[in-house]
Amino acid sequence: MSLSHIMKPRAVAVVGASTRPHTIGNDILKRLLEYGFCDPVYPVNPKGGTIEGLTVYERVADLPDGVDLAIVVVNSSFVLSVVDDCHAKGIKGLVVISAGFKETGPEGAALEATLAEKVRGYGMRLVGPNCLGVVNTHPAVRLDGCFAESLPERGHIGFVSQSGALGGGILNILRDLNLGFAQFVSIGNQADVDAEDALEYWENEEDVTQILLYMESIRDPKNFRKLASRISKKKPVLALKAGRSAAGASAASSHTGSLAGADRAADALLKQSGVIREKTLRDLFSSAKVFATSPIPKGDRVAIVTNSGGPGIMATDAVSEYGMRMAELSDETKAHLRSFLPAAASVKNPVDMIASAPIEHYKATVEAVLADPGVDMVMVIYLPFLGLKDTDVAQALCDIKRAHPEKPIVGVFMTKSEFFSGLADSEPEMPFYMYAEEAAEALERLNRQRLWVEKPAGVEPAFEVDRAAARKLFAKAKAEGRAELTTRESIDVLAAYGIRTCGAGFAKSEEEAVAIANRIGYPVVMKMTSKTTSHKTDVGGVRVNIGSETALRVEYRDLMMRLEKLGLLDGLEGVLIQEMVKGTRELVCGIATDPQYGPMMMFGLGGVFVETLKDVTFRLAPLTDIDASEMVRSVKAFKLLEGARGTTPAQIDKVEETLLRLSQLVTDFPFVDELDINPLMISEKTGEPIAVDGRMKMRLDEVRLD
Amino acid sequence: MSLSHIMKPRAVAVVGASTRPHTIGNDILKRLLEYGFCDPVYPVNPKGGTIEGLTVYERVADLPDGVDLAIVVVNSSFVLSVVDDCHAKGIKGLVVISAGFKETGPEGAALEATLAEKVRGYGMRLVGPNCLGVVNTHPAVRLDGCFAESLPERGHIGFVSQSGALGGGILNILRDLNLGFAQFVSIGNQADVDAEDALEYWENEEDVTQILLYMESIRDPKNFRKLASRISKKKPVLALKAGRSAAGASAASSHTGSLAGADRAADALLKQSGVIREKTLRDLFSSAKVFATSPIPKGDRVAIVTNSGGPGIMATDAVSEYGMRMAELSDETKAHLRSFLPAAASVKNPVDMIASAPIEHYKATVEAVLADPGVDMVMVIYLPFLGLKDTDVAQALCDIKRAHPEKPIVGVFMTKSEFFSGLADSEPEMPFYMYAEEAAEALERLNRQRLWVEKPAGVEPAFEVDRAAARKLFAKAKAEGRAELTTRESIDVLAAYGIRTCGAGFAKSEEEAVAIANRIGYPVVMKMTSKTTSHKTDVGGVRVNIGSETALRVEYRDLMMRLEKLGLLDGLEGVLIQEMVKGTRELVCGIATDPQYGPMMMFGLGGVFVETLKDVTFRLAPLTDIDASEMVRSVKAFKLLEGARGTTPAQIDKVEETLLRLSQLVTDFPFVDELDINPLMISEKTGEPIAVDGRMKMRLDEVRLD
Repeated sequence: MSLSHIMKPRAVAVVGASTRPHTIGNDILKRLLEYGFCDPVYPVNPKGGTIEGLTVYERVADLPDGVDLAIVVVNSSFVLSVVDDCHAKGIKGLVVISAGFKETGPEGAALEATLAEKVRGYGMRLVGPNCLGVVNTHPAVRLDGCFAESLPERGHIGFVSQSGALGGGILNILRDLNLGFAQFVSIGNQADVDAEDALEYWENEEDVTQILLYMESIRDPKNFRKLASRISKKKPVLALKAGRSAAGASAASSHTGSLAGADRAADALLKQSGVIREKTLRDLFSSAKVFATSPIPKGDRVAIVTNSGGPGIMATDAVSEYGMRMAELSDETKAHLRSFLPAAASVKNPVDMIASAPIEHYKATVEAVLADPGVDMVMVIYLPFLGLKDTDVAQALCDIKRAHPEKPIVGVFMTKSEFFSGLADSEPEMPFYMYAEEAAEALERLNRQRLWVEKPAGVEPAFEVDRAAARKLFAKAKAEGRAELTTRESIDVLAAYGIRTCGAGFAKSEEEAVAIANRIGYPVVMKMTSKTTSHKTDVGGVRVNIGSETALRVEYRDLMMRLEKLGLLDGLEGVLIQEMVKGTRELVCGIATDPQYGPMMMFGLGGVFVETLKDVTFRLAPLTDIDASEMVRSVKAFKLLEGARGTTPAQIDKVEETLLRLSQLVTDFPFVDELDINPLMISEKTGEPIAVDGRMKMRLDEVRLD
Repeated sequence: MSLSHIMKPRAVAVVGASTRPHTIGNDILKRLLEYGFCDPVYPVNPKGGTIEGLTVYERVADLPDGVDLAIVVVNSSFVLSVVDDCHAKGIKGLVVISAGFKETGPEGAALEATLAEKVRGYGMRLVGPNCLGVVNTHPAVRLDGCFAESLPERGHIGFVSQSGALGGGILNILRDLNLGFAQFVSIGNQADVDAEDALEYWENEEDVTQILLYMESIRDPKNFRKLASRISKKKPVLALKAGRSAAGASAASSHTGSLAGADRAADALLKQSGVIREKTLRDLFSSAKVFATSPIPKGDRVAIVTNSGGPGIMATDAVSEYGMRMAELSDETKAHLRSFLPAAASVKNPVDMIASAPIEHYKATVEAVLADPGVDMVMVIYLPFLGLKDTDVAQALCDIKRAHPEKPIVGVFMTKSEFFSGLADSEPEMPFYMYAEEAAEALERLNRQRLWVEKPAGVEPAFEVDRAAARKLFAKAKAEGRAELTTRESIDVLAAYGIRTCGAGFAKSEEEAVAIANRIGYPVVMKMTSKTTSHKTDVGGVRVNIGSETALRVEYRDLMMRLEKLGLLDGLEGVLIQEMVKGTRELVCGIATDPQYGPMMMFGLGGVFVETLKDVTFRLAPLTDIDASEMVRSVKAFKLLEGARGTTPAQIDKVEETLLRLSQLVTDFPFVDELDINPLMISEKTGEPIAVDGRMKMRLDEVRLD
C-alpha cells in the first residue's frame, strides 16, 4: 500500500492534541494550522473543549468521516487502543510521534512489535513511532505534521531521516541554505514505513526531483539495492550514512573477511545502487544545492571564467582532483574572447578576465564559453572589485542561465556572507558557492550522476558449472562437521565452478608425489593439505620451485619431519603437487559475508601486499558483468594487469569471469561464509589468471544441500 | 633591515594621492584617514591643493621630516624618480601599489629589476610593486594602507598574500568569519619584500600569534625552510599553496624523477618546515579560527558531548578519521554524569545527553568531561531543541572555556546561520562550527601543531665515506661526456658512500663471469652494464637465479646473441655478476631534483609496484635523522618491513641510514640529478637492506670536481 494516505491525506486528526503550550500535542496542531493545511484538522482529546478555536473530539469514534491520517502524540501505553479506534473509524494512515518503544529496551520493543503487527493486520501504514513527523509542502496539500523548529521551505527534495533530532537540525539548515523540500519523512523506529518505502513512493512523484537520505542502518539491503538502483536512474539519490568508523573488530580469519568492515558493505551497496554517498552534512547540502537547479551535463569538460588568477588556479586544481577535464576552448571562442577582453587577460581555460572586468565582460565571456561545443559545464568566479556589485553579477548569471538551461553553471562568489544569506530570500536559480573547491565538488556530483545514468544495467551471466561436484565437496565437509574445507577441496570446488586452477594432483606418499610431479613436469610446488592447519605458509607447508625428482624427495622428507616436530602430522591429508605458475603479479579475490548485508566480493592486489597496501575493492554479490569490470578497473593494481614494463598483458576478461563465477558460486551456495583465492596468479606465459591457492569456509548451521 | 618602517611607520606619505573618487590614489588616502592612522598622513601630488581637508604637497622634497613610509600610486613610469625623491628625503619604507612591472612582460620586468636595485642600493625596503598594500591593526598604529573592500578587523593573524585580488577577497572573508588580523602584507611582484621577510619580521612580533600564507610559488626554498621551521615552533604557520595539479609533464627518466612532480617538492618543504598546509581557503579559515582562540592540547584524546546521537556518531567517525583518539572517560566521571543525566543518556564517550538536555546538563557535563585527566580536547554538539536557545548554550560554553583555558573546546552548532553571523559582532572566545567534521578537522590541526612542537629538531649525521672514490667515478663519466653513470659505476658510488651493495664483480667475458660467480657462490644474478642502455630489464639484460656454472654460460651466450640482434652490443661495457639476494620485499629509494626546490629524497615500495601503487614519500635533502625515520614510517610498506606473515623483520635503522647516506651524497655532489636504488632488497636471511641495482645521472654542465 502506498503512502498517499499519510503524505496526501484528505483530513488529519491529531490524537493527543493539547491546550498546554510547548507540548508536542500543542505544537503539532498549531503547526498544521499555521502552515495552512488544505483540508480539515481535527483535534482529539478525552478532555474535549476547544484548541486554537477548533472543537476537540473526545474520542476518535466521534470524528467526522473521511479522515485519512491520524497523528498520534499520546503516551505510548495508549497507542495500541488509539490504533484500534482509528481502524474502526476507517483511518488508513498513522504517524506515531510518541516515544517509549524499541528505543527504551525489551519491554518497549515488545510493545512496538505488537503495534507493527496490529497495523499490518489492519492494512494500515504507520510512520514512527518515536519520530519527528511528516511534511508535504505541495501547494495543494501543505501538510506540516512535524515539530521541527521552523516552518518548511517549499522545494523539490524528498528527505528521509532516521534520526529525529538530526532531521530537525537538517530541516533548519535546508531552510537556511534556501534548499526547499517537497516531502519529509522522519521514520523514527521504522516499525512499518522505512527508507525504502519512501524511496519507492517518491519514484513517481513528480514533485520530488531528488531524494536525500540520512541513515544509520539499512534494514533490507537487498530490497534497498533493487529499488535504489532503479530510482536513482530517474532522479539523484544522495545518502549520508553515519557509523563509518564503527566497523568494530572483525573476527573473520581470511584476508577478505578481515578487510571487509561493515562500512565496506554499506559503501558497496550504495555504489552499486547508484546512490551518491556523502560523508558529511556539508557535502550533502552542497550536492543537493547543485541538483536542485542544474541539468545533468553531457560530459565532464569544465570551463572556468574568473576575474582573478589565484582562484582560477585553485579551481583548476580542484577540477582535476575531482576527476573532470578542463575544457579546451575552440579557436573561434578564443578569438572572440580576445576581441573584447583586455590584453592582460588570458583567453585559455581558465579564462582570466583580470580584476577590473566589468559586468559586460562577465556576460559576454560566459555566453561565449557556454556556446562552445567543447564545454559541458561552466564555473564562474567573482572576487569583489571596486564598483562591481556581487548581486549584479549574480543577476546577470541567472539571466544567462535561464537562456541556456542545457548546461550547468555554478558560481564561486568570494564575497561577504550577506550575499549568501540574501540568496535565501529569492527563488534559487543556480548554485552559488563561497569557494572553488565546493563548486568543483558540486560539478563532480553532476558528472557522477551522468555516468551512472549512462551506465548500462549489466547482466548476471549464468556459466555452465558442475554444481553437483561442488555440492558433494561441501556435503563431505559438512558430514565431517568441518566448517573449513581443505586446500584440496577448496581448489576442487573452484575447478567445479570453471575457475582455472593449476595442474595438480594429490599425494599421500612420497612415491605418489613423485609420480604426479613427473606427470605435470618440473618445476612444481608442493603444498601440505590438512584438516587442522589452515595457514600453511606459517608452518613451512609450502615449498616452491622444486626443480627435479631428487629435490622433491628432499623437500617431502623435510616437510614430514618438520610437521612431526610441530605435532601437526595428525591432521595431514597429504600434499598437493601443483604446476609452478610463473608470474610476478599476484592478485587476490574472494568472498566475505557481512552479517547484515550478505556476501560481498573482494578483488585486489594479492600476495604479501593484501593487508599492508589494502589495494582492494568490494561489491555485494551477485555481481553483474559491469560490476566485475568496474571492480577490476578500480584498483591501482589494474595497471599491472595491463602489462607494465614488459610483462605479458593479463587476460582481463578472464579475471572478470573469475569474479563472476565466484559470485555464481556464493549465490548457489549461500552458506559459503569466506573464500579466498590468494594468489590468483597472472601467468607470465599466457596472461591467464590462475587460482594457485584457495581457502573456503562455510556457516555449518546454514548448510542445506537438498 | 626589518620591516618596521613599513609596518609601524611614524608618518605616511601617499605619493599620487588624488581628489578623483574611485581611484586608488583617492581610496588609499581615505582609508588611511577613515581607519584613523595614529600619526600624520601627507598627500603628495604635483597639482597641489587639498584632499580630504589635508594640504597636498607638490613634491616629496617638500614633505615635513620624519616620514617613514611612502605609499606610491603613481604611474609606473614615474616610480623610479619617486624612489629617488623618497631616498633624498630620508624615507626608508616604500609600498608600491602601482602595476605595470614584471606582470606586463620583459619591458616591465626590466623596470622592476632597476627598481629593486635602486631600493637595495639606497638601503630602503619595498613592498610590491603591483600589490594591494599593507595593514597593521595594532591600536597604537592603525595603518590601513590597502584598497580592499572593507576596513580591517582587529585580531592577531599575520597574513601574507601573493595574489592581490585574492588577498582582498580573503580580507573580506576573514572579517565575515570574525577572524581579525594584526598585520597584512600583499607582496605583489616581490621585487624586494617576500613571504620569508614577513615571516621573519613576525617571528618576534607579539601581536601576531599565527601566520597565514597564500602562495603561488616559494622564491627561496632553502631560506623558507630555515625560517619557517624555526618560527613554526613558536606560532602556527598555515599555508595555502595553489597550483597543485599544475605539475606538468616531467621529462625525467627515473622512477624517482617521474613520481616527483613540482607539488611533491612544495609539499615536502612545507611538511619539513612544520607549516600546516591547507588545500582550500575554507580549510585555511577553519584552522585559523581554532588557532585564534585555542591552546595547543597536551594530547590527542577527544571527548564529545552531544544532545543528539546521530551527530555524535558522525563526530566519532570524523575524530577517528582525523587520526585522533576518542577519550576513555574515567569511572568517576561516568558515575558523576550518571548522577544527573537521565537514564536514556549515554555516559560513555560520545556522551549523549539526549535531545531534551537543558542548559544545566550542558554545563555540568562539559565541566565534568573537561576535568577528566583522560581528556585533552572537548567537542560540544548542540542541536536546536524546544526552548533551548543556541546563544544561551554558546554563552555557557564560553564561560566554561574562560574558567578552563588549558584545554581546547570547540562547538558544533547545527543551528541557523544567524547564530554564526551573530558571532561576528562579538569578541571571539572559542570556535563554533556548523558541522562535526569541520570541528574534528580543526582539532586535528591543534593536534598536528602539538606534534610538531614536541618533535625534536633532528641532526644531519656525517658518515665516514670514501668521497674521493665517488669523485673519481663522477670525473670519469664527466670526462667521457656521459651524464648517466653505468650500473657498475653507480653501484661503486653507492658503495663508496657506505651503502650495502651486493657482492659483485665486473666481467668483460664469459670466462671472467664464470670466475667471479665461482668466487661469490651460486646462485648469482647477471646484469648487463652499458653506456647506452639504461633500462636493462626492457632488453632482457637481467638474468636472475643462475644456479650453476653451466647455467651461467648458457645465459651469457643468450644475452650476447640478443644484444647483437638488437644492435646494442656497441655500448656494452660488460656484465655484473652479483650475489643473488633472496627476499620478497623490494623497496625503492632515490634522489630527484626539482628545478626550483633542489634535490629531493624518495622512499617507498619498489619493484614493479613503484609507479602503479605510488606508495612513496618525499623529503627535501638534506635529511635529518628524524626526517629519515618519518619517511620510512610514512609509507604503507612499512608494515612489510616490520615483518608481516613470518618474514624476517627488516633492519629499519639500516634503511634509515641508507637514506641519510644518499642525502649526504647529494649534498656533497649537488650535480647529482637523479638517482635510483631499485630495488633496495630486504635480505630474507638478515633483514639487511641491500642495494641490488642503482642508476645515477648528473647535470653535466654543473659538475665541479675541484
